[in-house]
Amino acid sequence: MRETFHAELESLVGDLAKMTRLAGEMMTNASQALQQADLPLAELVISGDDEINALHDDMEQRCVNLLVLQAPVAADLRVVISAMHAVNDLERMGNLAQHIAKIARLKHPAAILPGEVRPVFARMGLLAAELADSAADAIETRDPLGATRLAEADDEVDALRRQLFQILFAEDWTHGVEPAVDAALLGRYYERFADHAVAIARQVGYVVTGELPASSMPNPSGH
Amino acid sequence: MRETFHAELESLVGDLAKMTRLAGEMMTNASQALQQADLPLAELVISGDDEINALHDDMEQRCVNLLVLQAPVAADLRVVISAMHAVNDLERMGNLAQHIAKIARLKHPAAILPGEVRPVFARMGLLAAELADSAADAIETRDPLGATRLAEADDEVDALRRQLFQILFAEDWTHGVEPAVDAALLGRYYERFADHAVAIARQVGYVVTGELPASSMPNPSGH
Repeated sequence: MRETFHAELESLVGDLAKMTRLAGEMMTNASQALQQADLPLAELVISGDDEINALHDDMEQRCVNLLVLQAPVAADLRVVISAMHAVNDLERMGNLAQHIAKIARLKHPAAILPGEVRPVFARMGLLAAELADSAADAIETRDPLGATRLAEADDEVDALRRQLFQILFAEDWTHGVEPAVDAALLGRYYERFADHAVAIARQVGYVVTGELPASSMPNPSGH
Repeated sequence: MRETFHAELESLVGDLAKMTRLAGEMMTNASQALQQADLPLAELVISGDDEINALHDDMEQRCVNLLVLQAPVAADLRVVISAMHAVNDLERMGNLAQHIAKIARLKHPAAILPGEVRPVFARMGLLAAELADSAADAIETRDPLGATRLAEADDEVDALRRQLFQILFAEDWTHGVEPAVDAALLGRYYERFADHAVAIARQVGYVVTGELPASSMPNPSGH
């Protein structure tokens, strides 16, 4: 019984890492669809969200089954609890990548991003996908991203969002309201994707140390 | 032992309902701060977020303790699992009310909302606070909001967001980029707050029926 339990737990953790990489791929594709107004790629991301949702439902059920049938304790219990939180984060990450792809689809064939903001989004896209990959590594190696790395990533995303608002609100912004609104919402989606990846890495820290991650830090401004 | 356990479980559920009403109050205050450019009220919401975060950490720890010490099964286990999900939703609801209040503070003493969009936000604020109250009722009575009511609320929030974009992107929008960006982000915060309230009500459905809520439905557009 215990042997089956540990095999199931390992398989759950392995699938969690795979799902995290899938979310990272969705983000990479969504970013490319956005940058290049690539409709088929946008459609690919949008349809991939069903897969994430199905994985979410399957993995949540497996977590509940493990709790019901095995009543795990100590480190094993922490793995199951963290997995339950992480599958929720991953579902949101899939949804957010999908939101980005849907804006690309909605505005197709127009390029959505005026030239001034393209480098900001290129960097945000890279950073978000990188954080998803780091979170997957953390799950596989049970080695949480260092606190320093997390703080750096948070700081960079915040700085990119501030930079974005400076561009949108500058007097020489000539593209009008709609592209600015799109850019602001896109910035929010990237930020939240990164937040969820960081939350997953923090969960790995909980599995390793037994200390629950504290509430997410409030961001300094309403933007 | 079992008696203590059930007393603890009841107390957890009671605190969850209180926390849900607190989130609803934060939203009501944030909406009023926004509509009336009321700085002290905005500050109250912003400082209240610490309370929500502290409640989150405390209640999550109590859930873990119940799992570790009691290994609950069946309906009791479902209550603990649902409570763990709900405290996460509530933390986000507090954060979102705080985001709204921070925009009110950032732009003070200016009124943030141009007249055209005020009625949309007044309705969104009412709806969001109402959903939080309904979710608290659902927790207290263990009676999930009817599926019809949930679908209606979802539809109304979607319709309000579409209405908002129509106003912002109309040719007669004369307020420029910054108020439009604020309004779009605010709309997103209200929508997510409502989503989390609905998710809590769905969790109550899980407690009652034992069926896990399916993944959230994708919204029809990237906006």
